[in-house]
Order: sequence, then C-alpha cells, then structure tokens
Amino acid sequence: MSQFIEDGAKYLLDNPDIAPNSAAYLWNKKMMVQVSCRGYAVGQFMQPEPAKYAHIPSLAAKSFMQPEQPYFSHHPGRFFYVRDDETGEMFSAPYEPMKVKLDDFKFIPGLSDVTWVAQKFGIEITIRLTLVNDEVAEVYQVSVKNLSNKPRKISLIPYFPVGYSSWMNMGGDFDKELNAVVCTCISPYQKVEDHFKQKHFKDITYLTADRTPNSYEVALQKFEGDGGLHNPSALQDKQNLTNGNALYEMPACIMQFELELASNQQEDTTLLFGPAFDKAEIKNLKAKLFDGSLNDKIHDYEDYIHSGNGCFDIHTPDDQLNNFVNNWLPRQVFYHGDSNRLSTDPQTRNYLQDAMGMAYIKPDSTRASILHALSQQESSGAMPDGILLTDEAELKYINQIPHTDHPVWLTIVIEAYLNETADWAILDEQVKWGDSDEITSVYDHLSRAMQFLIKERDHRGLNYIAQGDWCDPMNMVGYKGKGVSGWLTEAVSFAIQKWAKVCVIKNDQTQADQLNQTAQEINKCINNELWDGNWYGRGITDDGVIFGVNADKEGKIFLNAQSWALMCGAPSDDQKQKMFNAIDEQLNTPYGVMMYAPAYTAMRDDVGRVTQKWPGSAENGSVYNHAAAFYASSLYQLNESDKAFDVLRKMISGPNDADIKQRGQLPVYIPNYYRGAYYQFPRTAGRSSHLFNTGTAAWFYRLTCEEMMGLKGCPEGLNIQPKLPSQWQEAHCTREFRGAIFNVRYIKSDNDALRVDVNAETITDSIIRDIKANTTYDVVVYF
Amino acid sequence: MSQFIEDGAKYLLDNPDIAPNSAAYLWNKKMMVQVSCRGYAVGQFMQPEPAKYAHIPSLAAKSFMQPEQPYFSHHPGRFFYVRDDETGEMFSAPYEPMKVKLDDFKFIPGLSDVTWVAQKFGIEITIRLTLVNDEVAEVYQVSVKNLSNKPRKISLIPYFPVGYSSWMNMGGDFDKELNAVVCTCISPYQKVEDHFKQKHFKDITYLTADRTPNSYEVALQKFEGDGGLHNPSALQDKQNLTNGNALYEMPACIMQFELELASNQQEDTTLLFGPAFDKAEIKNLKAKLFDGSLNDKIHDYEDYIHSGNGCFDIHTPDDQLNNFVNNWLPRQVFYHGDSNRLSTDPQTRNYLQDAMGMAYIKPDSTRASILHALSQQESSGAMPDGILLTDEAELKYINQIPHTDHPVWLTIVIEAYLNETADWAILDEQVKWGDSDEITSVYDHLSRAMQFLIKERDHRGLNYIAQGDWCDPMNMVGYKGKGVSGWLTEAVSFAIQKWAKVCVIKNDQTQADQLNQTAQEINKCINNELWDGNWYGRGITDDGVIFGVNADKEGKIFLNAQSWALMCGAPSDDQKQKMFNAIDEQLNTPYGVMMYAPAYTAMRDDVGRVTQKWPGSAENGSVYNHAAAFYASSLYQLNESDKAFDVLRKMISGPNDADIKQRGQLPVYIPNYYRGAYYQFPRTAGRSSHLFNTGTAAWFYRLTCEEMMGLKGCPEGLNIQPKLPSQWQEAHCTREFRGAIFNVRYIKSDNDALRVDVNAETITDSIIRDIKANTTYDVVVYF
Repeated sequence: MSQFIEDGAKYLLDNPDIAPNSAAYLWNKKMMVQVSCRGYAVGQFMQPEPAKYAHIPSLAAKSFMQPEQPYFSHHPGRFFYVRDDETGEMFSAPYEPMKVKLDDFKFIPGLSDVTWVAQKFGIEITIRLTLVNDEVAEVYQVSVKNLSNKPRKISLIPYFPVGYSSWMNMGGDFDKELNAVVCTCISPYQKVEDHFKQKHFKDITYLTADRTPNSYEVALQKFEGDGGLHNPSALQDKQNLTNGNALYEMPACIMQFELELASNQQEDTTLLFGPAFDKAEIKNLKAKLFDGSLNDKIHDYEDYIHSGNGCFDIHTPDDQLNNFVNNWLPRQVFYHGDSNRLSTDPQTRNYLQDAMGMAYIKPDSTRASILHALSQQESSGAMPDGILLTDEAELKYINQIPHTDHPVWLTIVIEAYLNETADWAILDEQVKWGDSDEITSVYDHLSRAMQFLIKERDHRGLNYIAQGDWCDPMNMVGYKGKGVSGWLTEAVSFAIQKWAKVCVIKNDQTQADQLNQTAQEINKCINNELWDGNWYGRGITDDGVIFGVNADKEGKIFLNAQSWALMCGAPSDDQKQKMFNAIDEQLNTPYGVMMYAPAYTAMRDDVGRVTQKWPGSAENGSVYNHAAAFYASSLYQLNESDKAFDVLRKMISGPNDADIKQRGQLPVYIPNYYRGAYYQFPRTAGRSSHLFNTGTAAWFYRLTCEEMMGLKGCPEGLNIQPKLPSQWQEAHCTREFRGAIFNVRYIKSDNDALRVDVNAETITDSIIRDIKANTTYDVVVYF
Repeated sequence: MSQFIEDGAKYLLDNPDIAPNSAAYLWNKKMMVQVSCRGYAVGQFMQPEPAKYAHIPSLAAKSFMQPEQPYFSHHPGRFFYVRDDETGEMFSAPYEPMKVKLDDFKFIPGLSDVTWVAQKFGIEITIRLTLVNDEVAEVYQVSVKNLSNKPRKISLIPYFPVGYSSWMNMGGDFDKELNAVVCTCISPYQKVEDHFKQKHFKDITYLTADRTPNSYEVALQKFEGDGGLHNPSALQDKQNLTNGNALYEMPACIMQFELELASNQQEDTTLLFGPAFDKAEIKNLKAKLFDGSLNDKIHDYEDYIHSGNGCFDIHTPDDQLNNFVNNWLPRQVFYHGDSNRLSTDPQTRNYLQDAMGMAYIKPDSTRASILHALSQQESSGAMPDGILLTDEAELKYINQIPHTDHPVWLTIVIEAYLNETADWAILDEQVKWGDSDEITSVYDHLSRAMQFLIKERDHRGLNYIAQGDWCDPMNMVGYKGKGVSGWLTEAVSFAIQKWAKVCVIKNDQTQADQLNQTAQEINKCINNELWDGNWYGRGITDDGVIFGVNADKEGKIFLNAQSWALMCGAPSDDQKQKMFNAIDEQLNTPYGVMMYAPAYTAMRDDVGRVTQKWPGSAENGSVYNHAAAFYASSLYQLNESDKAFDVLRKMISGPNDADIKQRGQLPVYIPNYYRGAYYQFPRTAGRSSHLFNTGTAAWFYRLTCEEMMGLKGCPEGLNIQPKLPSQWQEAHCTREFRGAIFNVRYIKSDNDALRVDVNAETITDSIIRDIKANTTYDVVVYF
C-alpha cells in the first residue's frame, strides 16, 4: 500500500465532513462491491443480470448506476458496533451509523482488499474486506484488540442491513447448523413467465462467521427501536440481542460476539456475506472457505488482480502520477475489460473502448472482444447499440435508443490491438454477421463499417445523429431523421483515415485512396458547414439550426467538436490557435476541461435530454473525463505535450491537494465526471460522480504509454517518441512489449533531435526493430 | 372528533413503541396523503398517473401501493423541529425524527383533517393538516404556544424532505418573491417519446408559508451534517440556518421561523406543501389561498367530505361500532368510489365493487360507473381486466394478467344499485361495446356477461381460472388453459341466479329459467367435483390436481370456496354444518377469519404466486377482510347473524382493545388485511397492512345497512328484515332511502315473529311501500 493512499485515508479522520462518500471498489468475474470509508456499500452480482443482495429500505427501481448516489443512515452498508460490555460505551466502525468521533481512523483501499482501522475507548477494530475468485461472497476479516492495560469484555456486533427485498416475501432467521443469519425473499413478479425466469435467482442473503455468535437479531425494527441506528435500542443499557427472527419485517444480519480480551489481546473473526440460492450453497461455500484454505484463496484473488497489471511502469518526478499509473489505472482498465462493467449488454462503444484498454493488459481478451462484437454487426456495416454477452441478454436502458457512432470505435480499438501485438492475422479471421449466414473476414467487416459511416451522411456531407451519438442525452437533435452531428462527422473522417492506413498495409490501395479522398471531402464539409469563426459547431438540428456556436447563450462551445476536428485534420493552423484560445477561456477549469459551456440551465427542445441534466452534473457541462481524454489525445497528436499532460493530470488529485475535499473522492480511480459549470455554480464544481465505469481509463492508459512515455508499437517494432511534460528533466519506464522487456531511461538534453540508445548503441531512427521475446533491452532516450 | 379516537391517540403517547406506523389518510379528487402519528407521510397526485412529490432518498420503483411499507428516518414526512433558542433545547414534532420523549402527545385523525399536538420544554405545538378542494396542496396550520410563565425565543423549523426525485436533475432554492422553497427536478427518461409525455409533469415541489422565514436551507446533507436527523448539525449550538441552496444535492424544504413569545402567547403559521408545474402555479395558488379565504376553503373541503356521508346512522349498544359505521366507514366507501383509489385503470372487480359502495352514498355515481364499465365490455360478454378512466390510461401491473372473474361483479353491483334506487330504467340505457360499434341495452350487456361466464367452463362444468380470479396471485393453477376455479364456479352460479331475478322482473322468463336451470346444473358439478368430505376444494390445476382439500398440507381449506358455495346454494344442511365446523376450527382467529390455512411456506408450482408471499401477509393465509366480508354475506344469507357480526366486528378494534397494539393501527379504516397464519406465526398475526384500499368497505357498509340493520330496498319499497346480534336488546337507526327519512327503533321482543310499526301502525309484511320523498317515517321494529 502506498503512502499516498495512507495519507489520503488519514486525511479523512481529521475532516469527517469532507469526502464523506469516498469509496473504493472490488470485483471478481461474478460480483462487484463499492464500499465507502464510512461503511456504506453497494454490492452487485450477475444472475445473469446485475442484482443486489442488500437493499435500501424501500422498493428500489432497477436502473443503471446513478452518479453521486446519496447515502443515508438506512442505506446498505457493512457496519460493526463495538461495545465495552462493562461500561456500555459504544462506537460503530468504520464510522457510520453512530458517527462517534474516533481516536484514530484509517481507510486503506488496496488493489485486492479494503481495510478500515478505527480506535475508540482503548479498543482497536480492523476490518479487512476482500473477495475470492469465482465466488459471490464478501470476506471480512475483523480483528478486535484491547489496547488498554486491563482485561475487558467487549461485544462485536456486525450489523449488515438487508433491506426491502420484496413485497412478496422477506424475512430471515438464524440457522444454527449453518451458523448464519439467513434472510430470504422472493424476487417479486406478476407475470407467470417471469416466475420461470426468476425461480433460479439467488434470493437468499446470508451472513455467516467462523465463530458462533452469542446472540443475534434479524428484524431491523427490533434492533433499532426508538433509539435509532445511532443508538440502537437493542444495545442500550448493556442489553444483549434476543435471538429474534424477521417475518415480513425488514431484515438485517445482526450478530453479537461477546469477547473477553486480556490487555493487548486481539481476537479475529471472519465473516462471509453474500447471496445464495439455497442453504446448501451456503454450506458448500463455508466448506470451501472455512477449511483452512481461506488465506490461500485470498492470495489467489490477489494473483487474479495482479494478472491485470499493465504493460508498463513509470518512475517520473510525479509520485502521485507514478502511483496512479502503475497501480490504480491498470486495475481500473482491467476491471472494465474483465467484468464488462457487470452488464450483459454493454454499449457497443463502451465494449470496444474497454477492449482497447485490455490490449495493454491481456491482448487475447481484446482479440476475442473484437471478434465477438463483429459477430453481431449488421451486414449493412452498422453496429448494434449494445453487444449481447449471453444468450438471455437483451438490449436495455440507453441501448434501446438508436445511436449512430458505434462503428467509429472499431478502427480505434483494432489500431491499439495491432500496435500492441502486430497480430495482422486477425484481419483474415472469418466472422459471421449478426443478420445473415454469411461469413467474411474481419477486414471486410471493418471496411463495411467504414463504408456504412460514409453513407450515413446528409446532403451537406454530415453524419446523421438519430437519437444520439457518443453523447447519449443529445437525443432531440436528430430524432426526426434530419439532424446531424458535427462531432460524429469528424470522428468518421478520423476513423476512415485510420482504416486507410490498414488498407495500405493490406495492399488494398483502392480503398485506401477512396477513404483518404472521402476524408478530405468530409473535412471540407466540416469547414463549410460547422466552422463558427473561432471554433466548430457541435451539430445541426432537425430544423436546420446549428448549435454549439457563439450565438448560443448556453452550450456555446463543445469540447468534442474541437478535439476530433483536430484529430481528423480539419482545421488550419490559424483555426487551431483560435480553438485553443476558446477552449482555454471557456472550458478549462482547475478541475479539468469541461465538455461544453455554459451548461444548460433550461430545456432546449431541439437539443434534448442533456439540457435537462443538472448543470454541472453528468453530461451537462461537466468535466467529463472521457471527453477530456479525447482532447488530450488530440493534443498529443499535435505535440502539445504540456497541454495534454495538464488535461490528464487534473483527472487525479493528491492527498495534499485541497481539491480532494471538493472532489469527495480519494484518487483510486478516475470517475466518469467531475462536476463542471465552474463559472455558473462554483460551489459544486469539481465534485466526483463516484462512478468508476468510464472509457477514460483505457484512453488515459493508452495515452500515457504510447504518447506521454512514447512507447508505441508499430508494424516494425517499438516506436519511441516521448512527449513528456517540459518540466521533467528525466524519467524511467519499464515496458513489456511483444514478449520483451524494455528498461527505458529518459534524459533531457539540449539537443532538439531525439536520440535513442539501445543497449548502449544509438539507433538511426526511433524504432526498435526485430524485437526478441524474453529479452531485456536497455534503452536511453535523450529528448 | 369522537372520544374514541382521542383515547386511541392518547394511547400512543404512553406506548411509543406500539402502533408506530398508525396512520390516517386525506384525499380530494386530485390527491391523497397518508400520514402517520410519527410524522411520516406518503402523498400522491394524478398527472394523469399517480405521482409523488416527496421521495425516498434513492431511486424508487414505480409500483402499486405496498403493504406494511416500512418507515425509516429518511423516509418522506412532514416534520417540525422546535427549539428554545436561548437554551438550545430541541424536540421534533409530531415525534420523528428526533424521537424525544414528549410531555404530552395527541394524534387526532379527523374526517377532513389530521391534528397532532405535542408538548415539551413548556412549548406546545399543534399541527393541523387539511386539504382544499380541487388543489394539489397540503395545508398545514401550525401553532406554537409558550406554556411557561416567561417570555421565550423559540424557533419553529419545518423540515419537509423532498428526496431523490431524479437522476437527471434535482435541486432547489428559496424564492424570495414566492416566499417559498422551490425544489425542481426533471422526471427522468431516455426515450424521446417519453419527453413529450412528461414535459407537462409537475416536477416542482414547494413549501411556502404565510410568514417570511428568518432563514432556510435546501440541501439535506448541509442541514443534517454528521449530527444526523435526530440532532441536525445545522441546529446544534443554537446555530441558525444559513440560506443554502441544493445543486444536484438531495433537496429538502427547510425554513426557520424565529418566534418571540410572551408567556402563554401563541403564534400561528400556515404552510402549503405540494407539487407544481412552474412558479406561476405556486403564485396563483398562494393568491387563491392566502387572500383571507383559506378557512372558508377548508370548510368547503369539509363539506365535500361530508357530502360522502352515508345513507344511515346507527345507535347501537356498541359505541365503537357506531362511531366506525357512522363516520369512518362511509368516508372510506366514499374515498373508494370518488377517487377510484387514485388510479386511471382500476381493476374491473374493484371498480365495480367500489361503485357498489357508492350506491349508498351517491347512487348517480354508481349509475355512471356501471355505464362506463359496460362501454368497455367485449361483445363476447367478457369484461376487460381493468376499466380505463382517461384517454391516456393503459392497463398496468396486475391488469396485464388475464383474470376470469370480472363479469361476475356486474350483477352484484347492479343489484345494490337497484335495491337502493329502483332505477329500473338503467336496464334500458343504450351502451356501446368496447370492441364494436354496436349499441345495446344494459340488460343485454349483463345478459351477455352471464352467458359468457356460463360458456367459460370446462368438460366438468367448472369455470376456467386462466392466470387468476378474485385471488390475483393464484396465477399458476390454470395458466396452461385447463385449470379451473371452484370459487369462480360458485360465484357464477350465484351471479346468474341474481340475474335470473332481474330477468323475471323484465319479463324475460325464458332467460330466467335457463339461468336458474344452469345454476342447478353448476351446483351439481360443484358437489360432484369439489366436495372434499367436510368442505369444498378451491380448484383443480392444469394437471388435474384438486387443491384446497384435506389431503393438502398447506392451503387445506379456502374461505371463499365455502362462502360462495353457501351463497350459491350448493351445500345441503349437513354439508353446511361440516363447513362451519371446519371454518371455525381452521380459519377463525381472534383477528378475524383467515382466507385459507395453513398459509403456504414454500412454492407450489401448480398453485402460483400466492404461495411465495410471506405466510400471513397479503393473500397468503391472511385475514383478508374482503374475503371475510364475503363470508359475512353468506352468513347473513343463512340468518347466522351472530356469526356474521363476529366476522365484521373483528375488522375493527377499540382503543382499549389489547390488539390495537398488535394491529399497529388506529381503527379509522379497515385495511385490506390483517396478518393471518395465526397458528403458524402467532407473533405477527393480526398486524395491519396499513393499506386502506379494499373492497371490504363497500361490503361492510352494504351488509350493515341491508342485513344487520335489515333496511334493504326492493322493487316495492323498503324491506325490513333486521339480523342484529342476539346480545343487543335494542338499537336505533336513521335511514335515508329514496328521498325519505326512516327513524327506526329496534326493540327485542319475546315473539318469534317480526313486527314492524310504521308511524304507529303495524304493517302486514315487512315491506314499507309507496315511499314518499321528503317524508319522515317513524318505524318501530320488534324483533
């Protein structure tokens, strides 16, 4: 665990009112749990759709993950009351729900575990949460230590609320044989056909332990009483729990362990919490984990997480950046690619970009994802709005709304994959089509995707937006079938130029020429139709109104419309300078670059849902990190290394950075957004969404590796073109690439020209060729 | 207000842990609000579907009303913190969320208002909630009184949480011009078409007052802080609110009024709380209600509620019964009939039975409901699963599941309507059909309904159940199209016998004979196929398995299958005696008669959803009052007056009755169920569902009037056949009937034969004929 995080965690103790929802997440292939420093938690598993095993105290809507989800005292969490049974003094750990000011407190998110340490009344409680592979169970290793110099009687009372699980059936009881509180429910339904879908659901939530509790309680109301969760009636006046059950009463898993601890003595207890289909499943799980092998299995899980280590390690003058890029960032990329965000129908663009990140971690997985996605492509070349991962899966939520950008991402992910692997054979892989029995090559799939994008343009040469493009909630620009997206048109130009390069390598010069020719034409259309004098407009509505322009009072300038114009090569140098000026003036903030500004404060019926989002939240004028990463990409393309670094660096913050307070988040992941609307609503600008699902991670990783450190694959080998921030004098990077290891030292020199020494020999250009696997290369880069 | 209720309310003070959710409800034609004695509240209004304007702190599922919905500290409510600004001492009224033990407390549900009185620290706060007609607004008249003998500075801080209203947009601020906290949101959506449906939604929630607050707060987290709702950080250390807004933060309407009160001085404040489309709507509402006319408008609302007074008043030896039947019961019947349970697609059987209740309150409304329902009847004679009340309405929830009993209720409601009005002309009203342009008479509609029911029987002569009948969750008995319902077959026999009587009066002897003949045949089938030796089985599954029989371990005996057998005349006297014995032994409990027993504890795949409900909750083995009312009806039909009275009387409980604690409810309405499973789960048996939507109300009212008091209309006039419980020596009833008033005294006599004196003259039979409107009849009944 890095000092960086420990410092961050310490910070929370002295500032209990800040970062109150700062959270960490753990996952394996079957489940995910996000836990806050205060003890609140959200756990989900797949059956096959995401399901919860601990609920709020009311019927919750089934929904995608919500940003800035507020916690409240009855929210699900994993709490431990700790009571001195002789004095009756009591506190709760981690912090909620009693919120007693602690003498010491640590919140230590790890790569494969999360630990809390709390001290009060001379008692220390350490709670470590981890997972194991292939099981849906949270593992808690809890130690209670008597720090005082006399023997004490101490009760440890885990309180794991289960909540309102069903209007049909909910309750629970203690099962002696299992030594578990077993809460049951029946997922509610009304249609007969749903019964057959749901009858195999894991409708049990259990808490079991490796020691027998002295007493238990299951009905929340009986436990809480009129005392409230901050002072439960059942624990007042040194009372013990009374072994009650819950019969269609709000259930909670509550056990009391009465410990007698000598001075400095510590007692360890292990708890398992999760869903189950039946009691036999709990029994089996206990047999597997409580047979003495638990620590081995926890190590196996650690190994699994470490198997997602990235392809490079950096050692730069920026410790926070090093820590983030070496530990937290590849972990986030791995999470996305390995769990598919715990969905069965990932949005196509997310699925592809998550696969892009995996190119640097487990390229086989990227390969499989590309082939799987293409097997659902329509023979027109169009991509569906989501990729179905299971036979039962269906398109849900936003994936039921037609978006037009999905094919764009194909060339981007395949470029990353080829950069990293040079696996050109993939282009000849034969893949079926989603809507026909035809089977053709990956190359043909991609080519058709590009031709489809070219075709889906209007008389002005601009791409139709339908009910959205990358920006989901821009759903009314083109719902009548006429409106167009400036950004998408730029992205199409960019994508087909990328593909043209592959065509050349595949000796398909005809298509390459056509694509390049078309890109030039498109760029002309972009300049003709969308250039607004100082930047590019975002699109044109069904009724022919251009928006994202200076004449607009809100939503004047959109970042994506600039970034991708830069990437596709539309603007002249003069235009570029004007764009940078506009971005710096209107979009850049201390918390990052906003997606557009000013945020909308009222509905624009011709733009759509985005305009109804809270200014500064989510898409509406936020620092949407995914968009910021695109901008960084365009900056690197233009060798604007310092600007690019600034954009990326603002996605992280450090423990001594005052804005950790504003962000409300320890820097253990990049959230999908920080609130924007910086000039309109400064009080809330910079707040984290607390959502760790974001394509940003893959882009950040790729840009750091290929652009900032300049270690990008090419057909011939490794092309070394660093774009380090100008303030760095030196840096070091270890890079795994095509089976070899590259130890790269970067040394600033006064020479303008780049010099690369490999194993003490200067190479003629910047490309290391003929790479031999299982070899270590010592590289010095003078930049 | 009756002593009965005040006593009940007092009871709560000394027993804060009992009846913690005891609640009352108010409604007008546009909204409904249920408030608990502790201050929790659920408010709904129509736009046109039911919508909430105060939410839980998480995304709530849209759902029908849930039974035994648990409250928790962040649940919506209308709370008032009261603080002595000099000492900092503080409590909250009514009781939550601080739960400070009060010196005095009253919860006084009224017919058109609800009042709480709380005393602590020498301060008395009185909160009166009422509504006005035609507006969606809760009106709070709040008085704070200094009971001490010195002047004091007291802050009144209403805290009305608004909750998690939308992931798209939520927040709020104080509007100076409106003198209101105005919280905004956008009802979330993803599909463009939903935007057009939702753009006229009232997405504002406001709290305004007739005095200017000294300060306010809108962000819940800022108010609550780490202190928690039981001790909000913002109010600690004599601090005042700091006038903050909420920007995509959980909003709440919080104002602080700083009052300076001389000894015994009182200050009154009026607050309005509700939803609005825009600020202009709030402005208009304030102009209407704060122009000096508020008390008049509250009286108008009182008049509206009183317009739902019933058609009779009783004065019996049972004070609790008198109070309930004269006040609370007609109010509940009126609520159902007038608001249609705040739905746009009431289930057909509910719609018809609610209309049946209205026959005794506003018979014109019953007439309109019958005609409206028939206009949606299919030309086959079938009735749809729900009746659509608006053009936009669609069948939702359970109304999407095919049920087979709906036509049965037509003859039952029309009988009640004709009893009360003798409006035989309704039978000749011409009504269109739901699926054709044909227009035919009501008589034809009803006849086709009966013929349809006769047709929908299998080779055994029993009626198909499809995915349910009156018992919604018995959804797997016949989903394959073969299973049959014993109860429904009995109900069909009963319904067609009723209709045969109308046929006779309409001189349609042919149909009458056919119906009576068929009923006899059906009764034979019932006896052949369903008699189990001591009672009737409930049905036969798709696979030919009879259930609701002695061989079953769970669900052995179903009340409905006995009640309706008795009503349709299937059993012999010997059978009847066996049935009564079985019911008394297996179904009767101190809390009423259970719908069946034993409750299911595990799924029976051939019976259905009911078996997955918690034993004792809702349909699964509960004292389902609607079914108990059917049973009472069958008992009255057999002149089992004492048994019938016992069944009805158990639906109410009194303040000195120990089971008010168990029921958790003041007797101001009949809930749809009390928990059953009395022999299986005695701890929770008797608990109220807290749902006041139930067909029970109409049946209870009709049975009390027509059977118990024996004042039933007939074609010739008023037929007097009292069936009073045998322990009563006398009683009195005032009955409005066909425009006349009947003052009826009941005197027990030693004669077996009934004697009726009208205006001091004994009449020859029990029918008062030739009733003259606007006349008062003095009637003495010697029974």
